[in-house]
Amino acid sequence: MSTTDGTAPATGAGTTAASGEAGEAGAGSGRDAIVRAARRAFTLQPYAEVTLRGIAAAAGVSPSLIVKRFGTKEALFNTVADFGAAADALFAAPLPQLGRHLVLTMVALRDRFGGDPLLRVVFSLGIEDERTLLRARFREQVTDRLARSLPGPDAALRAELIAGQLLGLGATLSLHRPDGAGAQASAEHLADLYAPGLQRLVDGA
Amino acid sequence: MSTTDGTAPATGAGTTAASGEAGEAGAGSGRDAIVRAARRAFTLQPYAEVTLRGIAAAAGVSPSLIVKRFGTKEALFNTVADFGAAADALFAAPLPQLGRHLVLTMVALRDRFGGDPLLRVVFSLGIEDERTLLRARFREQVTDRLARSLPGPDAALRAELIAGQLLGLGATLSLHRPDGAGAQASAEHLADLYAPGLQRLVDGA
Repeated sequence: MSTTDGTAPATGAGTTAASGEAGEAGAGSGRDAIVRAARRAFTLQPYAEVTLRGIAAAAGVSPSLIVKRFGTKEALFNTVADFGAAADALFAAPLPQLGRHLVLTMVALRDRFGGDPLLRVVFSLGIEDERTLLRARFREQVTDRLARSLPGPDAALRAELIAGQLLGLGATLSLHRPDGAGAQASAEHLADLYAPGLQRLVDGA
Repeated sequence: MSTTDGTAPATGAGTTAASGEAGEAGAGSGRDAIVRAARRAFTLQPYAEVTLRGIAAAAGVSPSLIVKRFGTKEALFNTVADFGAAADALFAAPLPQLGRHLVLTMVALRDRFGGDPLLRVVFSLGIEDERTLLRARFREQVTDRLARSLPGPDAALRAELIAGQLLGLGATLSLHRPDGAGAQASAEHLADLYAPGLQRLVDGA
């Protein structure tokens, strides 16, 4: 399903959603293509300016297929704004191994979905009207959830800083692609360098 | 000049540039207010849609003052897109102390300028037409410069990951403000937790 070979994944924003993804979109009956196009639309445009018609055109499907699969624009936004599945994958390791697992999973998720699973919450800092909802989701589904699992002092602060390092990893891989050192490194090598700092925050020692 | 008391700084994006900054703007004869309004405008809107008139209105100055001080819209964008001054401050420490210096300086710069000095390059991943220029500047002025100063193997990769951790620190402080744990922590306490991971990447050991 997923690969961790460290090839440069594209963020949803800034790439043409239609290129080279026909096979994957076909496999998911258009669902992946719709989600990708929706993420891109909600990232690049204010909420009020996003239309199902525009998302459908970008995804290469009919507007009625989006309605059938996701319902309203608000429902689609709620799907796109959800960090729960990414958090499930990222946090699925015992605490003593979590640092390395976070790096490997982040790279695998970026490869698998052709974009970063968390980074859109940072883009949202630049878009006034989506800011509050996306931020609240992120805090609830990522930071607060992680904080509850961390033992020791400063759990809330450490969770925020771990979230920061995850966002920073995605940001730097996206910013330096396609020819940056991170884009060319294997996931294992990235973990060798990046996981110890994460693990230290997990351990709180 | 600057404080490191860790009070929650606002990002340029997402705050009303005119509020509570009259004193600072006055002290800089409007320059700071113009730069802040310009950063916000170039973050929130595609380049083609940004106008000096709009920036002037947001900064509370006349369009002619912007022309007088910065010249054209392109010249203003080039000023706003510059990461050189931030890099000068961030990298002004011997390598053995650089990790802690990076955290303290990041917090100080965010306080001093009412926004994050680097994070707009991440916002730019969501804005198609500014992407290339801002990213190129960031790589040249931050990542490549840092890589040249790092001894040992994987200098380019370690520089990318250090840049990622810096971007992630700013991102998480902005995302969890105003009531997050990071917003309430002192800069020294943030450095206690966050600097070791950075220092490990600096040392390459």
